[in-house]
Amino acid sequence: MLNPHSYACGQWIAPGADARDVFGPVDGALVAKAGAPLDYAAMRAYALTKGGPALREMTFHQRAKMLKALAAYIAEHKEQLYAINPLTGATRADGAVDIEGGIITMSVIASKGRREMPDGHVYVDGGVEQLSRKGTFLGQHIATPLQGVAVHINAFNFPVWGMLEKLAATLLAGVPAIVKPATQTCYLTEACFRLMIDSGLLPDGAVQLIIGGTGDLLDQLGPQDVVSFTGSADTALMLRGAPHLMRNSVRFMSEQDSLNASILGPDVTPDSEEFALFIKQAATELTVKAGQKCTAIRRIIVPDTQINAVAEALSDRLRKTTIGDPSGDARMGALASAGQRQDVAEKAAIIGQEARQILGADAFDIPDGPGFFAPMLFQCDDPDAAREVHATEAFGPVSTLLPYRDLGHATELANRGEGSLVASLVTADPEVARRVAIDSAAWHGRLYITDRSSMKEATGHGAPLPHLVHGGPGRAGGGEELGGVRGVLHYMQRTAIQGSPDVLTAITGQWVPGSAEITGPQHPFQRTYREIEIGETLTTDPREVTLADIEHFAEFTGDTFYAHMDQEAAEANPFFPGRVAHGYLLLSFAAGLFVQPDPGPVLANTGLNSLSFQKPVSPGDKVHVRLTAKRKTQRTDTYGEVAWHVTLYNQDGDQVADYELLTMVSYERD
Amino acid sequence: MLNPHSYACGQWIAPGADARDVFGPVDGALVAKAGAPLDYAAMRAYALTKGGPALREMTFHQRAKMLKALAAYIAEHKEQLYAINPLTGATRADGAVDIEGGIITMSVIASKGRREMPDGHVYVDGGVEQLSRKGTFLGQHIATPLQGVAVHINAFNFPVWGMLEKLAATLLAGVPAIVKPATQTCYLTEACFRLMIDSGLLPDGAVQLIIGGTGDLLDQLGPQDVVSFTGSADTALMLRGAPHLMRNSVRFMSEQDSLNASILGPDVTPDSEEFALFIKQAATELTVKAGQKCTAIRRIIVPDTQINAVAEALSDRLRKTTIGDPSGDARMGALASAGQRQDVAEKAAIIGQEARQILGADAFDIPDGPGFFAPMLFQCDDPDAAREVHATEAFGPVSTLLPYRDLGHATELANRGEGSLVASLVTADPEVARRVAIDSAAWHGRLYITDRSSMKEATGHGAPLPHLVHGGPGRAGGGEELGGVRGVLHYMQRTAIQGSPDVLTAITGQWVPGSAEITGPQHPFQRTYREIEIGETLTTDPREVTLADIEHFAEFTGDTFYAHMDQEAAEANPFFPGRVAHGYLLLSFAAGLFVQPDPGPVLANTGLNSLSFQKPVSPGDKVHVRLTAKRKTQRTDTYGEVAWHVTLYNQDGDQVADYELLTMVSYERD
Repeated sequence: MLNPHSYACGQWIAPGADARDVFGPVDGALVAKAGAPLDYAAMRAYALTKGGPALREMTFHQRAKMLKALAAYIAEHKEQLYAINPLTGATRADGAVDIEGGIITMSVIASKGRREMPDGHVYVDGGVEQLSRKGTFLGQHIATPLQGVAVHINAFNFPVWGMLEKLAATLLAGVPAIVKPATQTCYLTEACFRLMIDSGLLPDGAVQLIIGGTGDLLDQLGPQDVVSFTGSADTALMLRGAPHLMRNSVRFMSEQDSLNASILGPDVTPDSEEFALFIKQAATELTVKAGQKCTAIRRIIVPDTQINAVAEALSDRLRKTTIGDPSGDARMGALASAGQRQDVAEKAAIIGQEARQILGADAFDIPDGPGFFAPMLFQCDDPDAAREVHATEAFGPVSTLLPYRDLGHATELANRGEGSLVASLVTADPEVARRVAIDSAAWHGRLYITDRSSMKEATGHGAPLPHLVHGGPGRAGGGEELGGVRGVLHYMQRTAIQGSPDVLTAITGQWVPGSAEITGPQHPFQRTYREIEIGETLTTDPREVTLADIEHFAEFTGDTFYAHMDQEAAEANPFFPGRVAHGYLLLSFAAGLFVQPDPGPVLANTGLNSLSFQKPVSPGDKVHVRLTAKRKTQRTDTYGEVAWHVTLYNQDGDQVADYELLTMVSYERD
Repeated sequence: MLNPHSYACGQWIAPGADARDVFGPVDGALVAKAGAPLDYAAMRAYALTKGGPALREMTFHQRAKMLKALAAYIAEHKEQLYAINPLTGATRADGAVDIEGGIITMSVIASKGRREMPDGHVYVDGGVEQLSRKGTFLGQHIATPLQGVAVHINAFNFPVWGMLEKLAATLLAGVPAIVKPATQTCYLTEACFRLMIDSGLLPDGAVQLIIGGTGDLLDQLGPQDVVSFTGSADTALMLRGAPHLMRNSVRFMSEQDSLNASILGPDVTPDSEEFALFIKQAATELTVKAGQKCTAIRRIIVPDTQINAVAEALSDRLRKTTIGDPSGDARMGALASAGQRQDVAEKAAIIGQEARQILGADAFDIPDGPGFFAPMLFQCDDPDAAREVHATEAFGPVSTLLPYRDLGHATELANRGEGSLVASLVTADPEVARRVAIDSAAWHGRLYITDRSSMKEATGHGAPLPHLVHGGPGRAGGGEELGGVRGVLHYMQRTAIQGSPDVLTAITGQWVPGSAEITGPQHPFQRTYREIEIGETLTTDPREVTLADIEHFAEFTGDTFYAHMDQEAAEANPFFPGRVAHGYLLLSFAAGLFVQPDPGPVLANTGLNSLSFQKPVSPGDKVHVRLTAKRKTQRTDTYGEVAWHVTLYNQDGDQVADYELLTMVSYERD
């Protein structure tokens, strides 16, 4: 028997005298004792005074590296998790979705943190807003970590992934977390949590674990705290409606019931690859994790002309599902508990009032054991009149076929789920995809569209990805997780900053035009990454752009566009006063003005962003360049990226072009 | 007496028999009769079946143009609004904040819609996510309009701005609205609403107006509806907690109580310009709109060494405030009603239990009339022990001085407001600004920082701007309005789309690499804006890049960086195999390969985005270019912007660079 501990204020707490018995779904044996009373106020205080400050002291990149190492540590020890995974009723393949899925999610979020967030403490959201004519007063949005604690209340179905996906975003944001897994499978969460603590990678107070109930924890929460809940709509309603949470505007993210739909496009015929793909996908979603996935397909929406073909093909495929001991070869394991089996059976009976069963228990060999349950397929012949079919989530291997008349009817039916996590569409016609997106995207958090061209690389209807948001409107709870940086921002506060350019530069760590220019001791390209200061500026001598230059450049490059070559035609163009210099000639001359020929710390120009040509340059104009260090981002152990704000001026001091130049720069001098 | 009508299902509805009497705050006379029973279910249905589809049929640009015209129409007729503005107790200057403020806000949001959103039906959020190795299956986030109705419940203090700022974002999103202004000043809202209907610019069902209560409207709302509330925390708590709203995850945005702070930096001394600025700002925020602004300064946080100087200077300045008939010359008008005066007096008394009054009624001439109220200044000597000072919003000309010991103490006090709309800081030291942002930004929706360099152009502590988010965490309600496109997205659903490149192209209207390339009937630069199809592609012949080219380009431009000139030094560089071509040489040759010399619809290259050099090009390599029409955006009546996806390949078909090229293209051929 397992003995999952809570982890509070840096201490492991064993199950108490009145811990709850957890029985396994495979053989009904006692698996674990779970729960002990905890001092929840002390846990919150520990998170706020220890974990929060320690995490906020780190930069986004430091936290990302920590998460990367954490994911690697768990991966190294993952067989410890697979060893107890079958106790939850899950096969090894089911466990992989949970365990590898969790590890990969944490790792991808860490990579996104490195690539898409700064190596600092302030995340910059969008561009500078010009609030004044002369530019002495500007606006800029930033995001900073909430100064509270995140309480994660997780579902039983993904004890590892559920914890890691939320922790990745929370810790990257710089916010400590208290994790409360569902009791039924808490021992697997605890085993993974224990690995994180053993790794020694996390600062004190960054994570705590509650085995058992949350006691009075939610009554302690303040305006900087967050609750992220995954579970049933009824529980969500009870928790989010607590006046204390509402009075403090505590952020409450919820991922709950979802009647996910899968639509077969009107263009797909039974002999096509898309048809086979649709059947395979429906069968997989019904049986993986015994259908206990928030994203599983509950409603299969098909053209009325194809419904018999789909019913037959899907039933045939499903009949081959072997059900059995999850530690063996069976394709499908058990539901998580006897209670779940009871619940799924009850919900299926409700659906059965509006739909006829076309596949069920009599088609399968079902082992003894409290959690085993056979796939059930229903068909609802009047989906417009039906209510429960669109509203009742049987959280197991249960799905209903619905016929549609035309594409508008199909999206109407999909939308009748009143908000879902994901809807999928199999079609080979991009115009069908467009129509479904326009009519239906607002009702779904994710829209998954496949055909023969993408099916080999497609990631699965039911798989939330770290890159993409996971969550849905309405019945699905209105929450949003993951989606790269998007998910991280839910644990941060967006704030509009207004101030002078110098103030914005100081706060964001990025040089804003108009703020102080620093003159360094030498050419900035001779300075190492570490030496370069934000604001360090080079102003070059001017160079005249002659008509001969323009003609020569045209001939050399082949760019003989009339605006450069033909005075009369150029004058007729609304943008030019007459013949003008090529934009690329200006860029090239600019580089000639600021580049240092000799080897030095600046290794390469890797790209540029947001180049804008603002004023034409005529023959005889003299152009000079200002180049200022704008932003620094560490990339590898030996070099980092320095972004430079580059502005070209003419002899009147008018801006003729500006852009952001990207370079790779060594940390050290050779 | 005024007779404000509701506007429901396209009909004006006069006040009913049991309409409420609204009395003016200046002389107590009956100003208006307000309220009639309405068929709220019919109003919602009208919005969903008429307004929503009509708005969603339009593109973002069409809706933006509609809003621009609407703002202009209101501006033309604004004197009608100024004429009744004094009835609310507001001076002409107060009215300008409301009326001009509303018009400008709608106009700026419209401009942002044109500039920052596509001329289509789908808003693209972020970049394409590479979900597969071969690129046959990709991810992309989009936002589409919610298919419900927005219910705006607005406060009494800004009857025009409050309506227009919310409508701008809602209508631009493509969502119809039902506006319910506070009854006390509903007649001014109605006058502005009437202008909008008279303009004939809005489709049927886009807007409706409720004068009086919302009846059972909120009990009708579904998962695609939104409530945006502005008012007291108590009312917000009652509304947002309705189980019906929570069960449907109805989005509820709230902008409520806020104990906004203003901090005087520790670097500021009484003889400095910053000190005078601070005093002026505090006095203005106390008296504009008689202090009835959600963003007014309620807590003035100053170094303990300066508190006497601040108290004295601020009192002196405030004493000069003239209070009187708002249609005359008085600096400060009346509170909105006798009830408001009563409420402010009660709240001030609560504050008075923890702070001593240092300025009040005896320093002013106060006219008769039910709404007049003199500025009150308190000083709290023990702000750490105080509770009510940080929690009680007296919604009138009432503010409290708080002394701080050091900067950490100052932000701690500011944060004790438990979440506010705005905090301001006057400092000439950017490091003070940075510290305050790090410690305090998470508690405030906006941080307003000024000094002598920016004060002339600064927009005001109390002024929400259309460019910047307005809203705050915790006590301030946790909502977010405005902020350009950010505010629009609150009326849209973000959805992750997964599919093949062709599917993403069809849905977003932007060409995604990997999707179909169309060969047009002639060179794409000879095609007009209207003729160019998304996906239209030109593939050029290759051009060899010789060592002579590189040397010549180096000499011509002056860019003699060693990676181009010195084989041995180039080999020592981690990025290069030896001497390589200049990036700008490649760009220039690429232009030479795809440019059409003769006059045609493509008028100019205006810039480029996201240029990335991916593989070095060595002497002897042959480079060719693929150029594909990616995105089209109308700009003026005669031309629009076409963005091209440009990729450079070497002779092995490896990508050596890619970027987005921006061009302006005529709608018509000359």
